[in-house]
Amino acid sequence: MDFKIRKAVPQDMPRVLELITELAVFEEEPDAVEITVSDLQTDGFGKHPAFNCFVADVDGQVEGIALFYGRYSTWKGKVLHLEDLIVSQKMRGSGLGTALLDEVVLYGNQLGVKRICWEVIDWNEPAIKFYEKKGADVKRDWDVVHLNEIGIRNYISKLEDARI
Amino acid sequence: MDFKIRKAVPQDMPRVLELITELAVFEEEPDAVEITVSDLQTDGFGKHPAFNCFVADVDGQVEGIALFYGRYSTWKGKVLHLEDLIVSQKMRGSGLGTALLDEVVLYGNQLGVKRICWEVIDWNEPAIKFYEKKGADVKRDWDVVHLNEIGIRNYISKLEDARI
Repeated sequence: MDFKIRKAVPQDMPRVLELITELAVFEEEPDAVEITVSDLQTDGFGKHPAFNCFVADVDGQVEGIALFYGRYSTWKGKVLHLEDLIVSQKMRGSGLGTALLDEVVLYGNQLGVKRICWEVIDWNEPAIKFYEKKGADVKRDWDVVHLNEIGIRNYISKLEDARI
Repeated sequence: MDFKIRKAVPQDMPRVLELITELAVFEEEPDAVEITVSDLQTDGFGKHPAFNCFVADVDGQVEGIALFYGRYSTWKGKVLHLEDLIVSQKMRGSGLGTALLDEVVLYGNQLGVKRICWEVIDWNEPAIKFYEKKGADVKRDWDVVHLNEIGIRNYISKLEDARI
C-alpha cells in the first residue's frame, strides 16, 4: 500500500469531518459533533490557525488524520497537544497511525517542546497499548473535566441570580 | 477579608511561580516544575500570549491564580482550557477559588465557547467535589497521556535508527 503523510488543506475538511464523526460514533457519542466543515476550514487555516492537521493520503483518499495545536504547561512551558489521531476503520493496522504520530513527534521535536500530550478513553485498550508501546505515559490518575455549554449557561445564570 | 480578581501583570509572575510550585508539591511532583519566572513573563504577555491569567489579590498579595488559554475541540470548535486554578494553602476555603472560576466562566461565556475544560488528579476529592458542585462533569473514563521530554528523545532516536 502506498501512502503519504502531508499537511491538510481546506479541501480535505469534508473528509476530516467524516473521520471525526466516525471516531465519535466509536466513542459512543454520535451526537456530540457540532462542528461543521466550514468551522474547520475557517479555524484551521489563515493567519492564526487554531490547529494544525496532517493527513494520511492513500491514493488521493484521506484515511487518517492527526490534528494538534499548542498548549501551555505551568511546569514545562509550551507543549503540543494531539487532539485527534484517527485512522479510518477499514485502514486500522496498516501503519497509518504510526506514520501520523511520527510526524507529530518530529514536529514537536523541531519546536523544542518538552511534552506532547493527548487524552484517551480508558476502555480503548488497543489505543492505550499503541501509545504505551510508543513510550507515552497513560496517566490513569488524571481525569478530564468538562464544563459543557449547558453547564456554562447554568453557571452564568446562578452568578446573575446572586448579583440581583 | 477584602480581595479583588484582576488580570495578571508580568510583575506578578514570581508569586505565580511560587503558587505553581506549591501545587506541584501538593501533587507529589516537586521536581516537575522546570518553568522560570522569565518564561512566564515572556510567554504570557506581549502580542501573542500563550496564556491568560487572573490573580486573586488580597491586600496587594497574590493568593490565587487561574491560568488558561484556548484549545480546539473537533466536536465543539474553540474551547477554553483552565490549566491551573490555585489558591494558596493558607487561603483555602475563603472563596478565592470560586471568585477565580467565576471570572474564567464569564470570560469563556463572553468568547462564546461551548466548553471549558481542565484536568484533575483523581485523589483530590475536595477539588472534584468543588468542580462537580459548580456543574462540571469529571470524566473518570478519560485519561491524560504524556509523551515527556525523554519519551520524545527516545521516539526520535528510534525513528532515526529505522531510517539508517
